[in-house]
Parts: sequence; structure tokens; C-alpha cells
Amino acid sequence: MLVYPAPAWLVGTYDANDKPNVMLAACGGACCAQPPCITVALRPATHSYAAIVARKAFTISVPSAKFVAQADYLGRASGRNEDKFAVAGLTPVRSEIVDAPYVGEFAIIMECRLIHTLEVGAHTLFVGEIVDVKAEDAVLDESGSPDVTKIAPMVYDIGTRKYHGIGDAVGNRGEVSAKVGK
Amino acid sequence: MLVYPAPAWLVGTYDANDKPNVMLAACGGACCAQPPCITVALRPATHSYAAIVARKAFTISVPSAKFVAQADYLGRASGRNEDKFAVAGLTPVRSEIVDAPYVGEFAIIMECRLIHTLEVGAHTLFVGEIVDVKAEDAVLDESGSPDVTKIAPMVYDIGTRKYHGIGDAVGNRGEVSAKVGK
Repeated sequence: MLVYPAPAWLVGTYDANDKPNVMLAACGGACCAQPPCITVALRPATHSYAAIVARKAFTISVPSAKFVAQADYLGRASGRNEDKFAVAGLTPVRSEIVDAPYVGEFAIIMECRLIHTLEVGAHTLFVGEIVDVKAEDAVLDESGSPDVTKIAPMVYDIGTRKYHGIGDAVGNRGEVSAKVGK
Repeated sequence: MLVYPAPAWLVGTYDANDKPNVMLAACGGACCAQPPCITVALRPATHSYAAIVARKAFTISVPSAKFVAQADYLGRASGRNEDKFAVAGLTPVRSEIVDAPYVGEFAIIMECRLIHTLEVGAHTLFVGEIVDVKAEDAVLDESGSPDVTKIAPMVYDIGTRKYHGIGDAVGNRGEVSAKVGK
């Protein structure tokens, strides 16, 4: 699956014992502006899969590049066997809106209510309605909008198996194309 | 929709008059490994939407950052009124596998057969099975894998309305977390 760029997201859930769990996922993206929705796709064998089906909720916490080691660990361990939050030294925070935890240390959080489930093949696609977004003040620009350079999210390169940060701005939407066709 | 990182992809289709069209989309992501599938979400008002419904096919061409002006133009014009390939100075190439064109100048192409359609709200989610991926030799590393730094895709920041490139590698999958929990 040579998808460029692919995100490095952390999916937060509660399992059947109310234990908070969090898993790295690179299969996902935005899918609707109104209501605001995103997709995340998981294999049924994952511990997170059963949790999303049962609770009909999940969170997406976006790790900044400085958390790359924790994010990578959260992609290779299973919450079935380990308390992944504890091992990674991260704090599970109970959402006040959906039945799922998020990562307290991360700057961008999306709290999602499951609204569609679609079996695609080895992965099942979940569509979550984003019922709240939390953004730390530290990642907002002067106008109050989140700034991707302050969030410093990661892109996962399946070809080289490396995580990358975000680079410099290369143009402003609606401005950089001013001369095209002129 | 504060989704980080969001891709800048170009969706290629043929319209009812067989005119090739291409549109910028930031709503999408990987969604299954087997069969390999991706999602892209479009509003029904777009010219591309009707084309995907009719042809049951589309392509994703991944523009490198040097094509930011063309990509931005392809997000603000409509194929209903303009020959966007011609205005952008890009070459439509007919896929030999699916009923859709791709952008000849771009280094990574995914050719997709529509396998699911899900109405989510203002956007409709299309799931495409990736029936072929084309990668130019120039973006492969020594082992023959595509390298995201050579592809140089873009991330779109909805908060600041800027396009960004990809930054440096920050860690190798399965290695960078070796000390977590130890």
C-alpha cells in the first residue's frame, strides 16, 4: 500500500475490562466536512477493533515527531498483553464526550463517535464523526488556527519503513496557482 | 476538519464526454492492505463525483511539491468549465487497467476500481481497490522501494491554508522504540 503521505495516528479505546488502550494506525484520513468525519481502518485481530465495535467510539491523538519512539512502540505491542499507556509513559484521559480515552500529552485530539462500519477485506473501515477537537494553545498561530509546523505530526513511509516530520511550506492555497493558465 | 497530516492528491477521471479531468482532494487515505484499497471523499456537486459513479474507476496521482502551483489550480477550477489538464500543462494518460486517466508527469500513480460507495454527509466516501501502482525509477531507493523523500509529496494544512513538503526522517519503524519500556 504505497500511500503518500500516510499519517501516524494513535487510536484510543477502552477494552472489555475498561482498560485504556492506544494503537498506531497509518490507514486513515478525512472523509467528510459536514458532519466532520474521519476514517480509520483496522484488522479484526487487533485488540482495538473489538473495543471500537463494542463502545462505538474512539479517539485519534496526533503524536508530534518528538514522540516517535512511543508511537512506534504503540504500533508493535498489543493491548491484549500489555498496558501500553503505562509502558509508553503516556497518560490516558477519559473523554467527556465519547466512551474512549485520549493521550494527554499530545497536542491534537479528535474525539469520534462511530457512525459507519464497512468490511473491506483484511481491514475493516470505521467512519467516526468528530464530535470534538482539542488543540493545545501552543500549536495555534496568531489567528488562532492550528499550525502544522507547531503540531509537527509524522508521515509514515511504508517503502523505507521510516517516520518523517513535516517540511517547510511550499505555497498558500488559492495564491500559489495565481499564474497557472495566465 | 483538523486532520494532520492531510494529503494533497489528484483524482483522475473521465467525464460523460470522455474528457479527462483531475481534481485536488485532501480527504482520503489508505483503508485496507488486502485487497489494497484507499478512500477518497468528494462532494456530489463536483464534476469528478459523477464521473466516478459512472465509470466506477479513478486514479490517484501524487504530485511532488514542485507541482504545487498546478495542484492548487486543480483544486480551485472545475472540469465542468475548463480543460484542467490543458490549462495546467499536464498530460492525461489513459490507464490500461481502469477507465480513468492519470497525470503523466507525476512519479506515483494508483489506479483504482470503485468497490464501495458510502454516503457520509456533505461528502460521499469512495473506496477504490488499487489494481496497479506505477512508481518512476527516479523515486526508488537502492533496494527498489519508493522513498518518500524522493517522491516529495505534499501535506495540506487546513488551519493555515498552506501546502507543506515532507521533512527529515525521525526514526525507523521497529527500531526507534527499542528502549521504550526497558
